[in-house]
Amino acid sequence: MRLSSYFMPTLKENPSEAQIVSHRLMLRAGMVRQASAGIYSWLPMGFRVLKRIEQIVREEQNASGAQEVLMPTIQSADLWRESGRYDDYGKEMLRIVDRHDREMLYGPTNEELITDIFKGAAKSWRDVPRNLYHIQWKFRDEVRPRFGVMRGREFLMKDAYSFDLSKEAARHSYNKMFVAYLRTFARLGLKAIPMRADTGPIGGDLSHEFIILAETGESQVYCHRDVLELDVLGADIDFDDQATVQGVVDRWTAIYAATDEKHDEAAYGAIPEERRVSARGIEVGHIFYFGSKYSKPLGAMIARPDGETVPVEMGSYGIGVSRLVGAIIEASHDERGIIWPESVAPFRVGLINLRVGDAACSAAATGIYDTLRKAGVEVLYDDRDESPGAKFASMDLIGLPWQLVVGPRGLAQGVVELKERRTGEKQELPIDAALARFTAAPITAV
Amino acid sequence: MRLSSYFMPTLKENPSEAQIVSHRLMLRAGMVRQASAGIYSWLPMGFRVLKRIEQIVREEQNASGAQEVLMPTIQSADLWRESGRYDDYGKEMLRIVDRHDREMLYGPTNEELITDIFKGAAKSWRDVPRNLYHIQWKFRDEVRPRFGVMRGREFLMKDAYSFDLSKEAARHSYNKMFVAYLRTFARLGLKAIPMRADTGPIGGDLSHEFIILAETGESQVYCHRDVLELDVLGADIDFDDQATVQGVVDRWTAIYAATDEKHDEAAYGAIPEERRVSARGIEVGHIFYFGSKYSKPLGAMIARPDGETVPVEMGSYGIGVSRLVGAIIEASHDERGIIWPESVAPFRVGLINLRVGDAACSAAATGIYDTLRKAGVEVLYDDRDESPGAKFASMDLIGLPWQLVVGPRGLAQGVVELKERRTGEKQELPIDAALARFTAAPITAV
Repeated sequence: MRLSSYFMPTLKENPSEAQIVSHRLMLRAGMVRQASAGIYSWLPMGFRVLKRIEQIVREEQNASGAQEVLMPTIQSADLWRESGRYDDYGKEMLRIVDRHDREMLYGPTNEELITDIFKGAAKSWRDVPRNLYHIQWKFRDEVRPRFGVMRGREFLMKDAYSFDLSKEAARHSYNKMFVAYLRTFARLGLKAIPMRADTGPIGGDLSHEFIILAETGESQVYCHRDVLELDVLGADIDFDDQATVQGVVDRWTAIYAATDEKHDEAAYGAIPEERRVSARGIEVGHIFYFGSKYSKPLGAMIARPDGETVPVEMGSYGIGVSRLVGAIIEASHDERGIIWPESVAPFRVGLINLRVGDAACSAAATGIYDTLRKAGVEVLYDDRDESPGAKFASMDLIGLPWQLVVGPRGLAQGVVELKERRTGEKQELPIDAALARFTAAPITAV
Repeated sequence: MRLSSYFMPTLKENPSEAQIVSHRLMLRAGMVRQASAGIYSWLPMGFRVLKRIEQIVREEQNASGAQEVLMPTIQSADLWRESGRYDDYGKEMLRIVDRHDREMLYGPTNEELITDIFKGAAKSWRDVPRNLYHIQWKFRDEVRPRFGVMRGREFLMKDAYSFDLSKEAARHSYNKMFVAYLRTFARLGLKAIPMRADTGPIGGDLSHEFIILAETGESQVYCHRDVLELDVLGADIDFDDQATVQGVVDRWTAIYAATDEKHDEAAYGAIPEERRVSARGIEVGHIFYFGSKYSKPLGAMIARPDGETVPVEMGSYGIGVSRLVGAIIEASHDERGIIWPESVAPFRVGLINLRVGDAACSAAATGIYDTLRKAGVEVLYDDRDESPGAKFASMDLIGLPWQLVVGPRGLAQGVVELKERRTGEKQELPIDAALARFTAAPITAV
């Protein structure tokens, strides 16, 4: 993409309404624009990141055996009356009356609707296990929406729902999501720590939050440093192997990690002092096992092999997809701007032509641009007639992992400059060698 | 995907509420389920088709130079007051009041919001041309929603918006979308005919509908058979070449084609009788040029090179993405079920194991399944313990392009049966030869 024709309205100044760094940087990088309080439009640069995160979430859901569906945003109030949550939800639920005076709502979550769908289709033990998920916009009418996409009113969530015959089978479904979440966040370049959590309005008796560490996190968390050093991406995982999956869960939950509300001073104190981590955290995922909380009132029954019908055992599993865009920035930025992990970067390479009026520079930069594109490397080419300083600043701001700089001095010696955004390391390379870095090598995992 | 663990709740009987064939077949094939009147949940099979259509639409929008964004579903009423459409839209607009008593609405279209976004970012002739599009759910509160996803209340639309300095430039933007639409529908396996149209509530003075022919179409259309024989997919198109793009538009618009409301009996009568086509049609796209209808009231001004500021020239361009799922079925089915074009088929191959209890059959079918998956061929494997008749019927119903049948009789001779769903043609082939049909050959265009 050529920057001269790209819709990327960057801002030079910090917008006054933004209180946290991710909100500031997303506005300054032209990623989003507020439409109304807590409601954002995603501009091309922000949209690309959102889609990459969504795709990684999708791939890991599919790998764990979940099947993608898509439920509507607008739901009938009737189902929520059956579960008893229509009143529980209070003013956070956006309530709507249609032209025929039917009560509707903008779904804040989907336990009721998916249970109704499952009930209409499944009859017996042959129809389980199933895990159905969707990635759909939700609405929660927060009193004071703030922090940009981190706490918006309209937000994109991945929510999955598992259906099983027994508690034991439901626990395996829960464990599969637990492991899928660890893998998802690791691929996003995040260290996410599972922590026991309260179940809140979803209900149930087993729940974990997945929390990433960031200075601007909303809550206080405590953990043993060991948990930050575990690796889940190494080998492929057979999600049908209950023992293997349980083993991963056990390995992660054996190490102390807790949010403020579940914090145990004694257990924490027993950790060697140099291994204690006390930090701020951001919740990026939340999983629940709640058994028959919804299947019973909604009548989602299945027949066991012995003929007896029982309410289906359920769990639900959420990832805040749009929130993750902000959360990744909170965890990965410096004073000059965003530092995207390669896996979610909107483009892999930012190409800077330092002197647009110079025929040699433009020919070299355009040649590099065409070669990279033909090789399938996503590149944003700054071909604008701006000062070098302005170009460096905006390339640092938008945070692409690699910068390739073409200038008259280097070109005279046949070289271009390659800069890694994360480390700031620069090296001069012949053009062919620089190109080979991107066209020959496979894309780095993170 | 193994059918024994796939969430595909097919129905044997025709559901009584479905009046048209696409609605019947989508319900019977377990593609969608009604959540409320005119609001549908997309089950795994339907979701796959929806995503394939969306991706083809996206690729052709990108190829034409449009840039993807994502605007929210919920908009503030204020912008719609500025354009004067808040009252015009009447009861079809779903109006909402939030917890702070602010008037909001569920967007039925996005001219106002995108104009406001553009206005906030663009200042001069350097900032045009731009074409911004998104693929987002819309809501129109129809009095009588019907025909399934063909006329739902919550529906997925691709809407693009072009911004230009002059009428001439805006005309080129219009033409680019015209050609992108022809290519999109052709890739979807559809013969879509552009026809001059009224502009309705969008406004403006130039507009075309894109209409496909189907017996159950909502409106009467007339055309010269020549228009059905034009081909737009042959060569790549340089969308920046105004003359080339205009040439394609001229070639398509030179041939008589009109909806009932624009029909000219005399012009139609002048067509040789055997070349006249009078048929039913379904609208799948609609494009508009409307100049400064929104930019003027909303104050979206840009400076020309001479310093004078003028309202930006705009057009908008819609494709009914969810409607297309139904429209393709209306255009492509038989008495046994759906016939998917390869480009949008949920899976390319349906693999039937005729005798699940037979070790040789199961080993052969599983081997074929694994080989196809490893080669990246999407295959749905019917491994259920059902009768051959039930398996054939459900495979014909869901309409995958190719069926591979593994049975004990054929296996004894080392062959499997390959059936093309569209033609019904069957042939017996050695397993290796059957596999090579899918693993060696590139995917057919349509």
